[in-house]
Amino acid sequence: MTEEPGRITRRFLSPPMHQVHDHLRTRMQSMGMTTSVDAAGNLRGLSRSAGGTLKHVILGSHIDTVPDAGAFDGVLGVALALEWVGLARELEFPLAIEIIAFSDEEGVRFGVPFLGSRAAAGSFDPALFAIQDSKGITVEAAIREFGLDPGEMGKAVLGKDAIGFVEIHIEQGPVLEASSCSVAAVSAIVGQTRINLEFRGHANHAGTTPMHLRQDALAATAEWIVAVEALARNTEGLVATVGKINVEPNVGNVVPGVAQVSLEVRNADDSVRAAAVGELLESAASIANRRGITLERKNKLEHPAVPMDERLTGYLTEAIEAVGLPARTMISGAGHDAMVMAARVPTAMLFLRSPGGISHHHDESVLEEDVEASLRVGHQFLLRLAKQYA
Amino acid sequence: MTEEPGRITRRFLSPPMHQVHDHLRTRMQSMGMTTSVDAAGNLRGLSRSAGGTLKHVILGSHIDTVPDAGAFDGVLGVALALEWVGLARELEFPLAIEIIAFSDEEGVRFGVPFLGSRAAAGSFDPALFAIQDSKGITVEAAIREFGLDPGEMGKAVLGKDAIGFVEIHIEQGPVLEASSCSVAAVSAIVGQTRINLEFRGHANHAGTTPMHLRQDALAATAEWIVAVEALARNTEGLVATVGKINVEPNVGNVVPGVAQVSLEVRNADDSVRAAAVGELLESAASIANRRGITLERKNKLEHPAVPMDERLTGYLTEAIEAVGLPARTMISGAGHDAMVMAARVPTAMLFLRSPGGISHHHDESVLEEDVEASLRVGHQFLLRLAKQYA
Repeated sequence: MTEEPGRITRRFLSPPMHQVHDHLRTRMQSMGMTTSVDAAGNLRGLSRSAGGTLKHVILGSHIDTVPDAGAFDGVLGVALALEWVGLARELEFPLAIEIIAFSDEEGVRFGVPFLGSRAAAGSFDPALFAIQDSKGITVEAAIREFGLDPGEMGKAVLGKDAIGFVEIHIEQGPVLEASSCSVAAVSAIVGQTRINLEFRGHANHAGTTPMHLRQDALAATAEWIVAVEALARNTEGLVATVGKINVEPNVGNVVPGVAQVSLEVRNADDSVRAAAVGELLESAASIANRRGITLERKNKLEHPAVPMDERLTGYLTEAIEAVGLPARTMISGAGHDAMVMAARVPTAMLFLRSPGGISHHHDESVLEEDVEASLRVGHQFLLRLAKQYA
Repeated sequence: MTEEPGRITRRFLSPPMHQVHDHLRTRMQSMGMTTSVDAAGNLRGLSRSAGGTLKHVILGSHIDTVPDAGAFDGVLGVALALEWVGLARELEFPLAIEIIAFSDEEGVRFGVPFLGSRAAAGSFDPALFAIQDSKGITVEAAIREFGLDPGEMGKAVLGKDAIGFVEIHIEQGPVLEASSCSVAAVSAIVGQTRINLEFRGHANHAGTTPMHLRQDALAATAEWIVAVEALARNTEGLVATVGKINVEPNVGNVVPGVAQVSLEVRNADDSVRAAAVGELLESAASIANRRGITLERKNKLEHPAVPMDERLTGYLTEAIEAVGLPARTMISGAGHDAMVMAARVPTAMLFLRSPGGISHHHDESVLEEDVEASLRVGHQFLLRLAKQYA
């Protein structure tokens, strides 16, 4: 189920999404669930409660992928949600369960992530309809082309009977593996700042320009990258990354005149992040100033941290402990649909270990023992939720 | 006289070279010089000696340019050579003078510099005939297309009556301007080393990978670039440049997995340069090793320094002093035809100040007062040479 033979690439409302829907719909219906696709292309399956209450917990994750993706990022959470529904049936769970297979989390097709969960959380800005993909197709046209009605977007929003959302997802990082843990409850999703910086010096002949007469934009940037790394290493839980650099003219025998770099800073504590960003910008300004070169910056993104719901996260932690595993919680360094849903409904996340920390890559994997652990945790979690709503 | 309207671009044996030849030929012939074009496309003009000796001094520089060049790099040296011939006539100079307008110094068309001076110096490797330009035209075909015979290349080599070569050229750097000097004699042309390095770490998610679990290729490279700059700043006369950097995947939210950089090191003392290169490679290896990332290197170029002829350079220095200017000598950080010619014949160079240090750019310029100074210096230089051969 992919747009490209030989590798997994499945973007928002691309043709293979129909195949995924067909597959999941069949599985949902075989479990007696009723299914629908909302205007954002989210596949939704409802498992009614035995007692008839409309109160329901939502389980799910996303079914879109990055290009040349692995097999587990997103879809594993949907597959496990189906298993959790099976577990719920066995213990006469008092609530209904809705599974949502979100249509877009990665944001690959339109450059904007979370189109699916925004719709469910009621934060889908109508301005998004006009955004175009690389072929000039708008979000609105893509929705129509998929056989859906953009005018129905409002109906995708969760009602007030939704009591919580739980997302199961691979960690996509090396933290659980480094501490030999199978699973962890997520306590918060980090906030992040993205800023582009441009150091502008002067391009000069690399042979004829003595060191003391240079305004080398790359040397300035290098000095700053060292400072970025040092600050992050010395600040608990902070990650700071210069992932992108473009130099002009980028020729071996010319002193670089311009260097453009990206800065990304993430932390679960917004004040720690703000302080770090402030310090790094000051450091960039002082390096530029001392070297007689100019510095410009463009703020690209500013996202506050999103704490997960304490009660639901507590149930997850208890459940992990109940199956004999260490009651580990951790910060998610990546964004997830859970971040968007948390603005609408109490939300929790369960992470599964990522072998080698590998993700967004076809080598992405997951261990069978961790999948099994997540099912035992699900059972214990549902027991606790059932007790609350009994 | 350009390949591109609106800007000066004149590559080896390109059509506008014919125009330049026509123009210079007319000027040479009006001075009673005999002219010819050798098999490498060098225009050569001979001014016979009054006394009939075949002994001759060679003056000249190149007439090709980089794309979008200034008006002075190379051609100024040919124009001034013509003026020096005029000065020589006035003082009954005892030697013949040959002017060579070299066809290729920049190496833009075939990626190999000095095709013109190699031919004159007898170091034109026949393997060069087979090299192709971007259109697949070989050097050999280009020579034929220009109306010349590649089989005659041997006849381009200087005979033993050539007693010296003097090249006049703009400095292409900021050194003379920084010390308010009009002109300087060149004491040596630096040697240089070019090496490409690749730091290979591991690409990871910038949000989910804690700092201590990263193998960030760009952070490693940045640390090394700081070391490159520091060493060069602390080593007399050394320039070291990282001019080029390419990072993979070069995306803001991914820890860089690979960084490829160029290193260029130049100095007039080969042992100083070798020691610096050794130290920088050790530093790169130790940074990579400490960070658990791999380092590969590819040696691209290794050129020894070329000292200019002491006697001719001494005459130039005396001449500069004789016209009331400071007897300045300097190292050339750039390569020149003089470097190639020095292997065949005693060679000297005179630099003219480059305003702003600007070169290889259409803003390249030269001051009238410096051109005038170079003519007075030429007069004094020829007087000294005349005395030697009187």
